[in-house]
Amino acid sequence: MLETLLEKPRQTDGASLDTIATPALILDATKVDRNIARLRRRLVELGVQFRPHVKTAKSIDVVRRLFPGGRGPITVSTLAEADYFAAAGITDITYAVGLSPDKIARTRALSARGVDLSVLIDSVEQAKALVEAAQDGEPMPAVLIEIDCDGHRGGLLPSDLAIVEIANILRTGRIVLSGVLTHAGESYSCRGGIGLADAAEGERQAAVAAAELLRRNGHPAPVVSVGSTPTAHFARSLEGVTEVRAGVFMFFDLVMHGIGVCTIEDIALSVLATVIGHRAEKGWILIDAGWMAMSRDRGTQRHPVDQGYGLVCDIDGVPLRDLIVDDASQEHGIIRLRSESAAALPDLPIGSRVRILPNHACATGAQHEAYKVVDSESRAIVATWQRMRGW
Amino acid sequence: MLETLLEKPRQTDGASLDTIATPALILDATKVDRNIARLRRRLVELGVQFRPHVKTAKSIDVVRRLFPGGRGPITVSTLAEADYFAAAGITDITYAVGLSPDKIARTRALSARGVDLSVLIDSVEQAKALVEAAQDGEPMPAVLIEIDCDGHRGGLLPSDLAIVEIANILRTGRIVLSGVLTHAGESYSCRGGIGLADAAEGERQAAVAAAELLRRNGHPAPVVSVGSTPTAHFARSLEGVTEVRAGVFMFFDLVMHGIGVCTIEDIALSVLATVIGHRAEKGWILIDAGWMAMSRDRGTQRHPVDQGYGLVCDIDGVPLRDLIVDDASQEHGIIRLRSESAAALPDLPIGSRVRILPNHACATGAQHEAYKVVDSESRAIVATWQRMRGW
Repeated sequence: MLETLLEKPRQTDGASLDTIATPALILDATKVDRNIARLRRRLVELGVQFRPHVKTAKSIDVVRRLFPGGRGPITVSTLAEADYFAAAGITDITYAVGLSPDKIARTRALSARGVDLSVLIDSVEQAKALVEAAQDGEPMPAVLIEIDCDGHRGGLLPSDLAIVEIANILRTGRIVLSGVLTHAGESYSCRGGIGLADAAEGERQAAVAAAELLRRNGHPAPVVSVGSTPTAHFARSLEGVTEVRAGVFMFFDLVMHGIGVCTIEDIALSVLATVIGHRAEKGWILIDAGWMAMSRDRGTQRHPVDQGYGLVCDIDGVPLRDLIVDDASQEHGIIRLRSESAAALPDLPIGSRVRILPNHACATGAQHEAYKVVDSESRAIVATWQRMRGW
Repeated sequence: MLETLLEKPRQTDGASLDTIATPALILDATKVDRNIARLRRRLVELGVQFRPHVKTAKSIDVVRRLFPGGRGPITVSTLAEADYFAAAGITDITYAVGLSPDKIARTRALSARGVDLSVLIDSVEQAKALVEAAQDGEPMPAVLIEIDCDGHRGGLLPSDLAIVEIANILRTGRIVLSGVLTHAGESYSCRGGIGLADAAEGERQAAVAAAELLRRNGHPAPVVSVGSTPTAHFARSLEGVTEVRAGVFMFFDLVMHGIGVCTIEDIALSVLATVIGHRAEKGWILIDAGWMAMSRDRGTQRHPVDQGYGLVCDIDGVPLRDLIVDDASQEHGIIRLRSESAAALPDLPIGSRVRILPNHACATGAQHEAYKVVDSESRAIVATWQRMRGW
């Protein structure tokens, strides 16, 4: 099945999990497809559009799994992502990080190239900077106003009249106000699924309330955008919402598992590593994947189950009982049993290969140049998908 | 002065800290030169060779500050670093991570190209794998035996007779045993300089004892290699040691400051960021540098002074009182005052620029494609130095 899904010709050089250089970032595209299909189904049922966030994947090959041949829509976290995906034909783009004035020129260059770009602001200052820039009459991106639904980061409270003030200022510059955008970032502090449906409802209500405030004041606000991977999977109703954003759902990770959004088996991303040493008296197995390969992300540190720097699986991705990467130097990982474990340390001689599931797919992915796409049944590496980076 | 030190022509496009795209990795090469000169002086006084670790810098432009025109010696953490620096003419290289058998072929390719490469092992298994590979009579790298001086990671205890067994096995394959190598990784748990001289002495004693064990058993062990940035700066005597390794000293960082190895003013690396929002009621200033720009490293988390995701300075690198990056999303940083601070939040309007000193220069550097080298007096960006990555 995987063969028919992959666009690029199958690699025939015999590369496999047993032979490629380690550490390496391994992607199970069958799981990616399954994760995408599951969320797409949900969002169709809920009657909303889907604008996936590509900040986790940062690869056109992955995004083509979402939009075979299409132009989006996508969400990006940097203008470098916008440039990269636009060059690849994905031209319906929301840049979902608050816009600083010095970046306006670069967003306009995208608009001038025909990219249907929206930018995010939450202050009168930013609105004025946009209006000032628009004086020359050249193309401008559309604007979304950032709404704070849970105190997580930026944004205006849904009842804040600054929302209307911003809309009025934008109108003076003939800048298109598309609507509102919010992100339930605090949903990441939920555990085991508890509270996620409420977080989703809070996110929905905040966005809809802000849109209604705009409409009551003469601004149509056609776009009501919400989203995070946890809330996207737990929302009971998305009435009044027009689109959902989510990113890490494509790959999932141990943080998402701890929050209660996925199973371990859903996790499509892992780091292949090789055993390079032992300290039998300490119960340590050393591998060639340290924080440079895993990232420094310790996102499960305060979870009921702390996964260290990652959960250790055999070469086929099956978890080895109670084994985690307990500590990491730049290029060394130290595998050991969880402190409470009654299991025996498995026999993993020097040269053995293991796969480590990451805490945070966005952070682990960013440490690598490319995905090695695996056919899990044969262990063959069937494609290499490059990642982009930078700003 | 900076102009005369830089090998590349000065950039004349007007790029400066005020104008370049953010986030950006900023390097003060004058501080790099000062940090290098200071450690070089110490090591000359102590009568040992210097084999700097290039895993922090990962850039030939930085390494040329250490060896203008020379061939090394250097220490590397990956074979990709070895390939990259060898291609640039740095050919005296120690690969200081335990060697897995599947990497032997790649190390031999370097040896065959004339690179004076040493590899690291700490087990009979690895020695046997090398001897087996050497059967064909083609070039082999030299070998160092890893010694454990403080229980930090891998290595054999200095009195372990496996050291002699390994040496004897290597001799059967006519593989050159250069000597021993140790790393006082536990010195990173010191604070404020306390205990560092003792850590350095423990590191020295372990390496010298292991070398003497080899010599008593008929193996000359000409190389006795020790090193970490903290111990390199605090060793009182290095008698019996032939070379010292250190890496992060070129740039320094907040972890090194907390350990007591450098001042804040010595830190040569920072991330330039732009203010993108405010939450006045929460005392938050939002910037466009999140963990993607800073890394997820929280190396000061258990220090007496927790620096969050980094210490906030003005655009000229002068710390702003009590201001840290308290939290980070992928592309957002949240700046706030330390919780115990009596200072007032400074006025940093949207568009203002700040510089963030990193917890861990190795990790923060790895998040970026290149260093923007600044002339601190004029704020001009005078060069762009590319970094390498991968394995």
